[in-house]
Amino acid sequence: MENDDIYYMKEALYEADIAYKLDEIPIGAVIVCDNKIVARGHNVRNTDKNPLGHAELIAIDWAARYICDWRLEDCTMYVTVEPCPMCAGAIVQSRIKRLVYGCDNNKAGSCGSILNIVEESRYNHQVEVTRYVLENECACMMKSFFKKLRTVSKEK
Amino acid sequence: MENDDIYYMKEALYEADIAYKLDEIPIGAVIVCDNKIVARGHNVRNTDKNPLGHAELIAIDWAARYICDWRLEDCTMYVTVEPCPMCAGAIVQSRIKRLVYGCDNNKAGSCGSILNIVEESRYNHQVEVTRYVLENECACMMKSFFKKLRTVSKEK
Repeated sequence: MENDDIYYMKEALYEADIAYKLDEIPIGAVIVCDNKIVARGHNVRNTDKNPLGHAELIAIDWAARYICDWRLEDCTMYVTVEPCPMCAGAIVQSRIKRLVYGCDNNKAGSCGSILNIVEESRYNHQVEVTRYVLENECACMMKSFFKKLRTVSKEK
Repeated sequence: MENDDIYYMKEALYEADIAYKLDEIPIGAVIVCDNKIVARGHNVRNTDKNPLGHAELIAIDWAARYICDWRLEDCTMYVTVEPCPMCAGAIVQSRIKRLVYGCDNNKAGSCGSILNIVEESRYNHQVEVTRYVLENECACMMKSFFKKLRTVSKEK
């Protein structure tokens, strides 16, 4: 595991923590180009009442605005949790070079868990994938969120 | 093939034609709820320099704003071409009930051609799919666009 990967994943965890404090599923992402964070995002699906409000899509939207191109070919995305099919597809569509994620998502993960969209050879772009960077920290934040959610549900 | 499906697919073709005139790959979409078009979109990926600028994502974004919910459970999406993995994933994420599309996309189609994201039983939502409504019209618009593109490329 490279030091840079840990550094940027901590930044993605910082974004995930913002989502946590909004009572959103705590997933955060940053996009890095030339050793610089060019875009950030955290899950705001409930807050914005929008199915496109995932951390990865928000970060891709900002990165495209920053780079002024729909092709993010020199970019690496760091995201705390394995992307869903929508976000995995967006990573392929934007031609992001490399994806680094923290922990698996057994219910919707589409970078190996259910399907593997980012490494599918029949699409016109394949992504290099590094898994399990700060896995415990990323998984603990998710577990803590769902534990809190269950406690609140029981109290109601 | 129901008359309503033909009517709404013609509206999606109208959106695709707007993309065609912008020199964008001619794909259009509408979202229908309670027999009313609640959102429309056409491909603007190059115009907006944004990988999220697909017809389906734009229509989903507007539909969520209209319905004020990330769940589009009572909605049907009509789109001229089989959705890519990003858009197919967004259809699953937004829990759209039914998808109607015109023609297959052999290069990126993810509703049966390459992968089948919308009917994948391991995700938490499956979409009812109706294929090949106004297939010829939808496919002809794509063929005409790529023929024009090749002619322009040769002239350069």
